[in-house]
This record gives sequence, C-alpha cells and structure tokens, in this order.
Amino acid sequence: MDIMYGRYTQELGVYAKEEAARLRESGQRRSVSDRSRTLDLLEYDKGRCAKCRICTVRCQKFLISRVGEDWIFLILLGLLMALVSWVVDFCIAICLQAQKWMYGGLDSNVFLQYLAWVTYPVVLITFSAGFTQILAPQAVGSGIPEMKTILRGVVLKEYLTFKTFVAKVIGLTCALGSGMPLGKEGPFVHIASLCAALLSKFMSLFGGIYENESRNIEMLAAACAVGVGCCFAAPIGGVLFSIEVTSTFFAVRNYWRGFFAATFSAFIFRVLAVWNRDEETITALFKTRFRLDFPFDLQELPAFAVIGIASGFGGALFVYLNRLIVQFIRKQKAINRFLMKKRLLYPALVTLLISTLTFPPGFGQFMAGKLTQKESLVTLLDNRTWAKQGIAEDFDYIGHSQAWKHPQLNVFVTLVLFIVMKFWMSALATTIPVPCGAFMPVFVIGAAFGRLVGESMAAWFPDGINTDGTIYPIVPGGYAVVGAAALSGAVTHTVSTAVIVFELTGQISHILPVMIAVILANAVAQSLQPSLYDSIIRIKKLPYLPELGWGHHEKYNIRVEDIMVRDVRYITLNCCYRDLHNVLLTGHLKTLALVESAESMILLGSIERAQLQSLLSQQLGRPRRLEYIRERAAAEKKHLSVVSNPGSEDGSQRISTEESSFSPTRPVPQKPLKPALKRPSVVERPTEIPTGPNDNSGIALKNLFCASPDTEEAFLFCSFVCLHILSDSQNLCDLQIAEWEEKQLDEQVNFNNCKIDPAPFQLVERTSLHKTHTIFSLLGLDHAYVTSIGRLIGVVSLKELRKAIEGSVTVKGVKVRPPLASFRDSGTSSSENEATELHKLWDRHKSMSLPREHTPSESDEKSQ
Amino acid sequence: MDIMYGRYTQELGVYAKEEAARLRESGQRRSVSDRSRTLDLLEYDKGRCAKCRICTVRCQKFLISRVGEDWIFLILLGLLMALVSWVVDFCIAICLQAQKWMYGGLDSNVFLQYLAWVTYPVVLITFSAGFTQILAPQAVGSGIPEMKTILRGVVLKEYLTFKTFVAKVIGLTCALGSGMPLGKEGPFVHIASLCAALLSKFMSLFGGIYENESRNIEMLAAACAVGVGCCFAAPIGGVLFSIEVTSTFFAVRNYWRGFFAATFSAFIFRVLAVWNRDEETITALFKTRFRLDFPFDLQELPAFAVIGIASGFGGALFVYLNRLIVQFIRKQKAINRFLMKKRLLYPALVTLLISTLTFPPGFGQFMAGKLTQKESLVTLLDNRTWAKQGIAEDFDYIGHSQAWKHPQLNVFVTLVLFIVMKFWMSALATTIPVPCGAFMPVFVIGAAFGRLVGESMAAWFPDGINTDGTIYPIVPGGYAVVGAAALSGAVTHTVSTAVIVFELTGQISHILPVMIAVILANAVAQSLQPSLYDSIIRIKKLPYLPELGWGHHEKYNIRVEDIMVRDVRYITLNCCYRDLHNVLLTGHLKTLALVESAESMILLGSIERAQLQSLLSQQLGRPRRLEYIRERAAAEKKHLSVVSNPGSEDGSQRISTEESSFSPTRPVPQKPLKPALKRPSVVERPTEIPTGPNDNSGIALKNLFCASPDTEEAFLFCSFVCLHILSDSQNLCDLQIAEWEEKQLDEQVNFNNCKIDPAPFQLVERTSLHKTHTIFSLLGLDHAYVTSIGRLIGVVSLKELRKAIEGSVTVKGVKVRPPLASFRDSGTSSSENEATELHKLWDRHKSMSLPREHTPSESDEKSQ
Repeated sequence: MDIMYGRYTQELGVYAKEEAARLRESGQRRSVSDRSRTLDLLEYDKGRCAKCRICTVRCQKFLISRVGEDWIFLILLGLLMALVSWVVDFCIAICLQAQKWMYGGLDSNVFLQYLAWVTYPVVLITFSAGFTQILAPQAVGSGIPEMKTILRGVVLKEYLTFKTFVAKVIGLTCALGSGMPLGKEGPFVHIASLCAALLSKFMSLFGGIYENESRNIEMLAAACAVGVGCCFAAPIGGVLFSIEVTSTFFAVRNYWRGFFAATFSAFIFRVLAVWNRDEETITALFKTRFRLDFPFDLQELPAFAVIGIASGFGGALFVYLNRLIVQFIRKQKAINRFLMKKRLLYPALVTLLISTLTFPPGFGQFMAGKLTQKESLVTLLDNRTWAKQGIAEDFDYIGHSQAWKHPQLNVFVTLVLFIVMKFWMSALATTIPVPCGAFMPVFVIGAAFGRLVGESMAAWFPDGINTDGTIYPIVPGGYAVVGAAALSGAVTHTVSTAVIVFELTGQISHILPVMIAVILANAVAQSLQPSLYDSIIRIKKLPYLPELGWGHHEKYNIRVEDIMVRDVRYITLNCCYRDLHNVLLTGHLKTLALVESAESMILLGSIERAQLQSLLSQQLGRPRRLEYIRERAAAEKKHLSVVSNPGSEDGSQRISTEESSFSPTRPVPQKPLKPALKRPSVVERPTEIPTGPNDNSGIALKNLFCASPDTEEAFLFCSFVCLHILSDSQNLCDLQIAEWEEKQLDEQVNFNNCKIDPAPFQLVERTSLHKTHTIFSLLGLDHAYVTSIGRLIGVVSLKELRKAIEGSVTVKGVKVRPPLASFRDSGTSSSENEATELHKLWDRHKSMSLPREHTPSESDEKSQ
Repeated sequence: MDIMYGRYTQELGVYAKEEAARLRESGQRRSVSDRSRTLDLLEYDKGRCAKCRICTVRCQKFLISRVGEDWIFLILLGLLMALVSWVVDFCIAICLQAQKWMYGGLDSNVFLQYLAWVTYPVVLITFSAGFTQILAPQAVGSGIPEMKTILRGVVLKEYLTFKTFVAKVIGLTCALGSGMPLGKEGPFVHIASLCAALLSKFMSLFGGIYENESRNIEMLAAACAVGVGCCFAAPIGGVLFSIEVTSTFFAVRNYWRGFFAATFSAFIFRVLAVWNRDEETITALFKTRFRLDFPFDLQELPAFAVIGIASGFGGALFVYLNRLIVQFIRKQKAINRFLMKKRLLYPALVTLLISTLTFPPGFGQFMAGKLTQKESLVTLLDNRTWAKQGIAEDFDYIGHSQAWKHPQLNVFVTLVLFIVMKFWMSALATTIPVPCGAFMPVFVIGAAFGRLVGESMAAWFPDGINTDGTIYPIVPGGYAVVGAAALSGAVTHTVSTAVIVFELTGQISHILPVMIAVILANAVAQSLQPSLYDSIIRIKKLPYLPELGWGHHEKYNIRVEDIMVRDVRYITLNCCYRDLHNVLLTGHLKTLALVESAESMILLGSIERAQLQSLLSQQLGRPRRLEYIRERAAAEKKHLSVVSNPGSEDGSQRISTEESSFSPTRPVPQKPLKPALKRPSVVERPTEIPTGPNDNSGIALKNLFCASPDTEEAFLFCSFVCLHILSDSQNLCDLQIAEWEEKQLDEQVNFNNCKIDPAPFQLVERTSLHKTHTIFSLLGLDHAYVTSIGRLIGVVSLKELRKAIEGSVTVKGVKVRPPLASFRDSGTSSSENEATELHKLWDRHKSMSLPREHTPSESDEKSQ
C-alpha cells in the first residue's frame, strides 16, 4: 500500500470517459437551469421594470461567461499564489526571527542557548511531519515528480485535494521556519497546481468548460510555472524551469498561459513587498551590483568552465547521496523496524543532528551557522572580495558577512567547511518526510562553491587578469552566481537555472559564463545520474518513461519488433465467457485486445479488464444466480418448513464464499458447506487480506461477484441451502450449480453494453525505438499494439519500452523501493493486491496453479 | 508552378521509407568496408610494427565514432554559424560605410549626392534579387515559415541545398548592405538550418547516424536556435524564439541541443568581436547603462501597459499592411503583367522610393534618415533624456544622437515621422523578393515608439513620479526597450522577444514592464491577426495547421463526427482493377483506405495513390499490352509487307494517345486512327499541357501508362496498326483491345508488391476537435481515419480540420495566393496540374463527365 505517495489508480482513458459522461450530465442539468431561468424572465416580464431586470440577468450571464475565460482564471491563480507565497515567506521570516530572538536572549548560558537552538527546529519539523502525516501524506516531499507524472496524463489519487493543499502550505511553512536546509520551490509547484485544481473546481460552478480534462492539464502546466515564478519572482525562469522539470513534450500553445500567470504572480509578489515597505520599488529578490562595463575577462572563462564541470560532479553526487541515504535507512532492518513504530523519530533525529552541528557557538562558528539560507545567499552574492591575497584582515565585514569571519580560520576554510557540511546536511534533510524542496539548499551550496573559486581567483590575480593597462579586479560574486546556477542545474538537469539566476540577481551581465557552466554541469551530471526528480520518481515507482539519454545512437536502430511481446492476450468477437474467464485469469494487462477472430487476428479495439470482469460478473453474478436458484426452488416443488436464524453477516459471508466458488473446474464438490469450517480458510492468510484503508479494495473484490449482499438474498440462499441439507442432496446441488455455471460459461459474450476503445494506438513492426519513445511520451500512452496490415502481432507496454531504454542507461542502485516505505506499510501496492487476490480466489477453486507472471515489484526486488 | 516557394512534394512517410532503405543499403556497404579493413589489418600483421598500425587504426576508429556525437556536430555548427554571422555583419558594415563615404565625399553637389545615395541601394538590391532569382529562388524571404513547415515534417524541395545557402548568404549581405529597413534574423534561421543540413551530409561521410530522419529534425530545431542566437548574441532568447516561431510541440529532450549550440555560437560571435578589437570583453550587443537601484517606479506601469496595448495594435497593423501590399500588387493586372516581364523592376522601384524618402538633405532630415538601423537602435536605447520639459535645446547631442535634432522641429515630431515612415517602409521593403527578415526593422520601430512615450513621460513628470523625496527621473531608454520588445513580440506572436531584449541590452532590470507589455501586445495582436510568419505561410500556401486561438472554448465541444467526411474513398482487399480505376478517378486524396470488404468495412491500412497508380499501370501498362499485341500478331498468322516510315516521335505520340485510350467505357471506337487527325486533339488545349519546368510532370503522366517509348515498341505497334489498316479490320482491332482491357480490369488486384501503411492514424467519433488538433500537430498528420470498432466510418484531413478551426478564427483576406506568384507563372501548382491532367485524359476517353471535386486553389480564388 503506497498511500503516502499516491497510487497509479486510474487510466487516463477511464478518466476521460467519466469526465465526458459528467460533462454531458452537467450539460443537461444546465439546460434545465437555463429553462428555469427563462421562466423566471417571463415572470419578471409580468412585473414592473422588466427591462431593468432582463438587463441585470444579461449582465450576470455575460459576467459568468467571462469568468470562463482563461485569462481570468490565470489572473486569479497568479494573485492567489502570490499571496500564498508572500504569506508563507512572511511566516517563515517570523519563525526564523523568533528562533534568533530566543537564541539571542539566552546568551548568558550556552547550554540553554543550545537547548533553544535545537528544540525549536525539532519541534517545528516534528509538528510538520506529524501534521502532514495525519492530514494528507501526499503532501510530503517536493511534489515536482508527482506533477511530472500527473502532467504525463496519470491520475494520482488525492494529490490535488484541499486537504493536501492545507497540509502542504502549513507543513512547508513549519519546515522552512525551522531553518533546516530545505527549499520552497518544489512544494510551490505542487501548491500552485493544487490551487489551480481547486480554483478550477470552484470556477466550474459558473461554467462548464472547467471540467474539460485536457484544459485542466493545460492549466496545471501553467500552474507549475506560476509556482516557480512566484517563489523566486522569476517569471521567465519559472516558466522554463517548470517546462524542463515537468514536461517531455511541451505545447507552445500553452506558453503564453505560463508567462501570463507567472508574470502576474511575480508582479503581485513583488508589489506586496513594496506595499509592505520592504522595498522602494520592484527589483530582483537577491539584487547584485556587479559592474556593467567589464563584467569578466575572457581569460576567466576556464575558471567558469571548471566551476561547471565540478558542479556537474557535485550535482550527481548529491543525487546519489540522497538516494543512498534513503536506501541505507530502508535496508537496516533493525533501525527500520524501530523507526516504523515511532514515525516522528526520524525527522526529529535528523533535525537534532543538523541543528546541533550548526549551533553557532559550537561547530557552527566554522561554517557561518548562524546565517539563515537567505542571509547566506545574500552574503555569497556580495560584490566585494572577501580575501585579498589571502589576508583575512582585509576582509571588510559588514552586516551578515561577519558570520564568515573566524579569528583562527581564514575564509577559504570556512567556505570549504560550509560547502562540505551543507552538502550532506541538505541531502539528508530532504529525506525527512515533510513538504520540502532541494533547489534552494543546492543553490546556496553552489553559490558558496562559486564564491570559493572566485576568492581563490581573486587571491591568485589580485590585480585582475587583463594586461591592457586598466585594472579590472576579479569579482568573486560573479563566480558565486555562476556556481549557484551550475550546481542547481546539475541536480535538476535543467538549463533554465541560468535564467532563474539572472532574474534573482537582476543582472544578466554574466550570461555567457553562466550558460557555459550550466551546460557543462548538465553534460557531466546527466551522464552520471538521473535528475533529482527522476531519481525520486524511480524511488517512488511512479509510472514514468525514462528519457532517451544523450547521443544514444543505437536507439535509432532498435525496432519495435525487437522489444514487443508477441504472446498477446486477446479476446475474439465471437468468444464465449469461458475464454474471457481464462484470459482474465492468465494476464495482468489493464486492457485486452479485441480481435475479429483467432484466424484473422484483425484488431478491432481494446477493452478494459474491468469491463470484462463486469461482463463476467453479470453473466455469473448474483442476480442471475438468484434467478437460477429461484427457478430451481420452484422446480423442486417442495415446501420449506425448517428455517434457520441467519445473521445477515454470516449469510453474506457464506454467500460470498459460495458465489466465488462458481469456477467450473472445481474438482471437490463434496466440500462441506458449514460456516464453521469455511471461515478459517479466509482467516488463514490475514496478511494477504488488505487492512486499513486498503479494505475497500478487498470489499470491491468481493463485490465483483456479489454486489452488496442483502438480507433477502441471504434468506433465499440459506433457505435453498437448508432445503438441500434437509433433502440430503447437497452433492447433487453443488453439481447442479457447477453445471449451470458451465452452461453459462459456454454462452457467447454479448459486447453490446461494453465500452470498447475502438482506436487503441497501433505501431508497425519496423517503428524504431526512438519513434516509439516519442509517440509514447507525446501521447502519454501506456501500451500500444503492434499490427501488420490490421493483424495483431504483438504489444508493447511502458514496461518493455522502459527495459529497452534502460538496457544501456541503467544506473546502479536506481531501482529502489519508496523511501521510508517500510515506515508506513509492509505489503505490496493495492493494485497488485487486487490482482493477487483475484488470482487466489480463482486458483483456490480451480485447484490448479497456472503459470503466473511475476509482479513488477517482485522482479525489482530480485534485481537489486 | 510554385518553384519560387518550393512544393509540398513528399509525404514524410515516403521519405522515412526511402531513408530506411538507404540506411539499410549503406549498412551493408559499411559491413563490406569493415571486412576489407579487417583484411588490411591481417596484412599489416604480417609486416613490421603491426601493433603500432593496429593502434593507429583503433585511434582512427575511435575518432570517427566520436565524430558521430551530437555535441561535436553542435560545436561545429555553432562555430560555423558564428563565423558566417560575423563575416556577414562585417561585410554589411563595409557596404554601409562605403555608402556613407560616397555620400559624404559628394557633399558639394546635392544632386550627385542624391544619385549616389539612391543608386547604391538600388544596385545592391537589384543584384541581390537577381542573384537569388537565378541561383536559388527558395532563398527569398525570411525562411522561418518554411522552417516551421519543415519541422512539422513536410519535405520542401530544394530548401536545404548548398545552392540555396550561397544564394541566401550573398543575397542577404547585399540586401542588408543597401541600408533598406530589413532584418537578418529570419534568414539566419534559414541559413543555420542550411548549415546543419549540409554539415549533416558532410558528417555522414564518417558515420551512418547522420542519415536518420528524426535526428535530422532534432538537429534542424537546434539549428534554428543557433540562427537566432548568433544573430543577436542571445543564446537563451534565441532558443526560446526559435521554439516559439517554429514549433507547435517542443521536445524538451532537444532543449539542451539548442542551448548548447546557441551558447557556443553566441560566444564565438562575441569573441570574434573581442579579437577584432571592437570590444574590450564580451558584453551585450546593444549595451544599456540604466540605473540598477531604482529602474522604474510602480506608477510608471500604466504607461508600459499602454505601450504594450498600442504595440499590439501596431503589430497587427503591420502584418495586415504587409499582406495588403502583396495582395494589391497581385490584383492590379496591368501592373502585374508589366512587372512580370521585368522581374527586377519591382525591387528597384521599391528601393528607389524608400531611399529617396530617407535622403538626408531631403525628407530624411525629419526622420533621422542618415542613421543606419543599428545606429538608430543605439541612440534610441540611450539612457539620456532627449527632451526635458519639451525644450529641445536641453537635448545633449552626442555622436549619432544629433541626427534626431532638427532646427525647426522638436524631437517628438521627428520621432513620430520616423515611426510612421519606417512603419510602411518596412512593411513594403519586406515584400521585395530578396532574403530578408522583418524582425529588426520592427524592433527599431518599437524602440522609437517606446522612446516617444518615454520622452513624453519625461516631459510630463520632469522630476519623476516618486513622491517620497528622492528624485528618480524617468528613463526614456527603458521605455524604448519595452517598446522594442512589445512591437516585435506582437508582430511575431512571441513572448521570448522579452528575453532577447534583455540579452541584447545586457540588463534585466526592466523585466516586469517588458513582460507586461509583451504579454499585452501578444494578447491584442493574436486576437486581431495571425503572426507575420503564419501570414506568410498562408500566403505561400504551405501545408500548415492553424493554431487554436486564445480561449476558443467551443472547440472543446466540437467532435470529430461533426467535421469528418463520411464519404470515404476506399478500396477493398478483394477488389478488381476496375474499382481501383474508378476510385482513382473520383478522389483527390493522397492516400486511400484499404478495408477488408465493403460490408465489414474493417480498416486494414492505407495505400498511397501513387502505389495504386503503379499497380494499375502494371496491369494495363506497356509490357503487358505489348505482350498481348505480340500474341495477337502471332495469332493473326499473317505476313507484313507494307511498312510505313515511322518517325520515332510520331510513333510515341500515337502510342501514348492510343495507350491512354484503354478506358473500358469508351463509346466511339470508330474514331479514325490517322495521326493527322489525332494530333490536334492534343494541341487543342495548349494551356493545359504544362510547359517549362513543369514538363517533367506532364511526361511523368504520359509515362504512367507508357514508360519511355522506344523505337522497338513504336515499330511493333505501327506494324500492328498497319496490319489492321491493310486488313480493313480496324474497328475490330479497337474492339479487341477494349475487350482485353475490360478483361484486365475485371481481374482481382494483387496487393503483394504494394506498400501498405498498416497503421494509419485512427480517431473515434467522439474525439474532440481540441484533441484532434493536438494529435495532428503532435504527430504531424495529414489525415486520420475515423473508425468505430475497427469499421471505417469517415476521414478527417488537414483541410477539414483547418475549416473547422477557422470557422471562428478566419480573418478577412488571409487566404491569398503567393506574393508575386504571378510574376513567375500564371498556372496552377504542379500537383494540381497533374491531377487535372489525369482527369482530362480519363474524361476525354470515357466521354462522360464525372462529378469532380473542385481543386483547392479554385475554391480559394472564388472565396476571395
């Protein structure tokens, strides 16, 4: 059960169909309300000032129709998100001030100071973890991986609800207020999407178009841009970053939406700061003041390139470290079991460790521990040189920059310690199950690294490199900007961090060094590790499709015929229910191909598994069975005199057990039917029956063949059973039911009431892997049939494609189970449960074991 | 014939197949060469220092494999384009200097000065127009519309050849060297794509992967980014701009390619300037020096918004004006016919008019006529205020800024005149058939407009708006930046012009005003007119798919069933050649659906028209006909004694006429067969037979049924005819041939040697228009079949989709014929010719008129 990270519950197709149905219904509803409105109008007409009223109604109509416009939605979204961002920032600032105030007030006693310094974040983080855990576990983590999955067309349950919104906002505020090295940009992407989804629901009260699925996806894409945009006041960078991290293929059509909403949001976000008298006018968030006329020398470019390459390695290391920590905790069974019991212990312990190390009078003094993330960044981007010619005394300490000075150590050591400590701290902190991102901590580390290189360069060339006469001293702040962009670019595998730094600093003069460093960092990082978000997607096992790597040319030569599964499960147009039953029993695919006949193999469409199951249950289900029993009872022409006292629960229990035993090949019909003997067979395997929130899937399974047992049925069935017990003809009865089932199974399937997808996506044998990948990611496909002149010859699913791509891309240890998954549950995911349960039901009654495909999680476990 | 603008010649599918075939072949070739290399190695082994040689071979192999890497390709591309851009800029600068020198040297005589001022651009433009006309007419115009079409998957003939490259580069240099208001950014997109295509061809000498089609598309996308990037030294803006103007859906996977190549290119481009001692270090192209601490006041934002909205209207007007000019010239038959004869007269006249008006001592003095485009832009972006409180005397004239001063007029009048004159001049100049873009002129006009608003604001609020005490005077240069971005954004319908101005000016401080203005300008312009590039696409009738407009919600409710064509032309698996013939006769579609049978209508695939035509020609073609004639001749068992003297041309003429008369329903077999009587029937309609470069299509048509007539055949046929003339059994003979044809036509079609696309794209009836549009643009489809459970029920082509979308979007006068199309030809396009010819051939012989679909061009003509 993967409730913490949501489940891959519904196919897009199903969703779309349901949406369409709902839309149709609401259309009817609306036309009804329209009619009533016209009636109202007629009524008004009779009264006074009819014209005036008509006018009012028209205005109202017009306004309502306007509300449906995209730009109104986007403005509202931007406004809302700017407010949320500003309020969150404001609360975080208050939290951080409170900590400083407490720490400052207790300067008489170091121990008390330590207690205050440590307790505060521990309490906040624990609260945040507990709050999100209770209210909406989906709010944990960054949210970008989930948004990437959702934008690919997968519906993740509970990810876009109001509860999650509340949990995410409050959890994030507390988490960031604790001063841990965590970021707000990932969660803000999620929050903006939540906002968009909720706003969409709210707006749909006024008009119908908000219920359109593809429109919702477009709006979510815009919302992601808003999230980044209002977080950094960086509209352009926000749009690009959100595109890079969430999309595989981007519709340029949606471009303006993102820009429009993100610009408006960033504008309001900064205007709020002006109104609050924090700023005089709208400027950048971390404004720099580098000189414009000679930003850097051409000969400094190798240093920038070095920053880029080193950042690439650093970024890959960060992703690796982050994953390693998750894996380590998961693998240590002893720790694991202990932590599982005390869910909030892990966050508390991690927070304790990190805040202890940053305690300013303790180790924190060597790594500017008392600075908050924002303060660190401001000082790092400063355009003064900290260390001229290595002499720390020249260091011009103003404001927060003092934190970097240590009487015994020079600034280089402080910077190195800061980088090293923050590096693993950030990697560790982002594994805490609270809403948090990793962008900002990585950004700060990158800036520190850049500053380190810059200071070294300044120490090496005190008079600048240029030999033309004019002295242009080296600006270490510029190096910090380059480093920040490069490291964050390497971790997220994006180029747009370059644009974000320009917007954050308000200066674009370092464009070429930044671009060079970011591209080099990306080149190195992408060849070593997946991006942080992709890594999380793999860890959480979200349904994803890996990207084709850089220059994997062999991909152009692999054909679909090389990777497709040739043994396709299909059903024919004139098949009988027995075939249906057998097919359902042996396959795991969510949809099945419908072909004209086994000889022609002409593909007609695909049918969902659930549809087939309902067909089967209709044929063999309760109503028909009851019918048969009634007929039988009437045929027996005997009168019933002995009635047992059937408790409704017992009855349903028996019925469900009995009814699931319809399988035709059941070889032991002599089995006694007493409840006392039958119940243990269900209780025997308590681990396999899902408990807790999973229960509904179990119930759903039972209901597959006995929809909502009621007393009438229980009564009827019991009387029927008793009848047979009395007449001592039980064996005969069982045989008769089996016979009836056999007869039912031999009937031809009636597909009339079955939803058939008439145009499943088809590929040709010679379609290249590259093209297949493109089509799968373009259309968000789950599987595609391979046909040859209309004849079905194979099927390719995401799984095969993934395998084929990863054949050369697989990185060691990437395939891991969800982080801390064992904290929350110890079973498999519910969809697998469902399949397994179904199997067991059938297997038990068939008493023969069919060759079962192993479930993906099992194979993954083995492959590790 | 549309040779000037290229033809929509090949479907992507065909192209892909051919590419695949070539790839396979080259693979075999390579394996052969590999084997020979191994043999060489063995030989070496016998000789001395074998190890050394093996090592060399290995190194060589390694290097060759490295050459295949994408990044090497991109670096080469970037380097090449930077060099081209720099050289072009250098040459343009020299040309402009030469003009100034000439003009300056002749200051004694105004008339001579005028002659020099006017003659120079006329000569250059005329040379440019003539040169491109002769070498490669495809090089005319911006190239972005064509690249958009090519990236959509359409193969435009001759657009990516070396000849076009040479024509474009030299033509562009001359055109821009003339000082006309033309831009280099559009042509540079085309030049970069040409470079990429040629480089690809060159690199394919080393490795096979350069021949892959989808890879080429990816590289072309990157090349477009390089084109813009090295033109403006704006890597980020270049990538974004190229995405916006060329793509509908963008693969984020290709993102890095664009960034990598564009950054490298921009870097080299700027480094060349440093090496050439033009610049001290790498900075922006049009560097500004606005103050950083208080770039603008919040209360100035309404003024920026006004600039945005006005630019939106201006941009739409520009697009409309540009189209109007093209239409006007086309419609005036008299002018048209005259200009058609003197092709170079139009460019010369336009240049004369524009350069006369900008003559500095003449009207040019009122509109800063002596400044080049670049100088104008530099002065407009200046951070000084030109007019303080409206008093022109305060104007601090330095350098080029003096051009804006006029003793009698104040600076506002000069600016207004500049804007108005340049506006129509640019719209007119971009219709000249030389390689040219419209971005830069529009950019300058926008800057002038922004400067005008800024100067007005500065005059209105001499001490700035801020009332807090500190005086922050208004910076009109900032307004110029905003105006430039807004107007160019409005004309091109892009948001990324914002990024381009930041990179061009090297300052990002005005980000919010720029973004607001650009978005407003886009909103206004997009609701009024298509973008300049889309307008050209429509004018040139390139195969395009219009975008869904802003907030056209009704699109979500239109279904495919509402727009599809229900009367689908199809062929069945067991059809006979007669059905094939009839289907080919009645339809115009490029592909035909293949269904199982007319009853089941199960869609099996689609076949191209050409494939069917070749099937039909195989069945009824020359070899089989000859066979039959030979058999007949043998059967007649008579000996030939009278032989006429058959000229080979006459013979083939007769044969082709005879052979195209195979049609079964021919009702008048008594027609006399004498050449003297038959020839006029061909000559009768000389206009229908294509002449000039079109001839090959006519020949191709004839060859459809009589592939390359030779003397042997002519001899045989003549002897056969003479035989019958002698035996007076001509009627009988004709009847016999008709009979044979009838028999042939009744045979069942053998599809074995026919290429069938087994998976044509299928939609369902209820697919929404919105989704259909997405799928069409995602996959670059031309048509899609609509099926219902495998049964074919309709077809939707680009045409229907276009109609459905334009139902609400159509803008008056958008559908026009190619600009200056009548300068070059007076017929319809060749593909239509082909179809019409085919029809006429059949119609003539069937002697019954079938209901003919009107050709698109005819309907367009009528609809105007």
